[in-house]
Amino acid sequence: MAAAPQGYEDLLERPIVGTLATIRTDGAPSATPMWFKWDGEGLRFTHTTKRQKLKNLEADPRLSFTIIDPENPYRYLEVRGMLERVEEDPTGAFYVELGKRYGNADQTPPPDAEDRVVMVVTPTGFGTH
Amino acid sequence: MAAAPQGYEDLLERPIVGTLATIRTDGAPSATPMWFKWDGEGLRFTHTTKRQKLKNLEADPRLSFTIIDPENPYRYLEVRGMLERVEEDPTGAFYVELGKRYGNADQTPPPDAEDRVVMVVTPTGFGTH
Repeated sequence: MAAAPQGYEDLLERPIVGTLATIRTDGAPSATPMWFKWDGEGLRFTHTTKRQKLKNLEADPRLSFTIIDPENPYRYLEVRGMLERVEEDPTGAFYVELGKRYGNADQTPPPDAEDRVVMVVTPTGFGTH
Repeated sequence: MAAAPQGYEDLLERPIVGTLATIRTDGAPSATPMWFKWDGEGLRFTHTTKRQKLKNLEADPRLSFTIIDPENPYRYLEVRGMLERVEEDPTGAFYVELGKRYGNADQTPPPDAEDRVVMVVTPTGFGTH
């Protein structure tokens, strides 16, 4: 496990929508915006068992997550890592936690709660600027 | 070449710092913020011959560029594409053009102008939300 770089902790703590890059099964990269939570050791994402990104990560667990400072887009943190494990979230509790973290105090579980999972990611390296 | 999706043209026109994902030579994804210009048919980036991202793309030209709406982070455009060609920019003219596009009216050529190139990218697909 790699330690988070000093001076960039705020980018891990703030509710910023980051960009998660994975490798598609054809080998090409793909990247889409994602909510996240930093738990002090790694990243946690809400996702579902039905979606492409999880299929990508089950085939190749390597990923990159880029968090750009909304107040200064030239300041950013890239977390490179591996999908460590997938935890079931059948009530959507982690989705609700993230929804509240991102500003929706009244967040309710999503319609696809029964398919919800938490993707737990271990960092292997960081890039900063 | 794939056509840009209707209703997302503003994300291609506005000076938003997007996230460019490439495949590292070890096969892992990497993604970092980049200036860009959409020329009506493809994306153009300023870069240098000394940097990792160009080495990545010379080994595997496939990439993904994600542009998130700064006013609504749930709205985004992902451009998947290929590095089509690399044009020399020895005076840094395209860097200056991008600097001005991103709000620096007094942009001057960068110190590494002699190594500057333009990466020209052809879209192969788009993702939107």
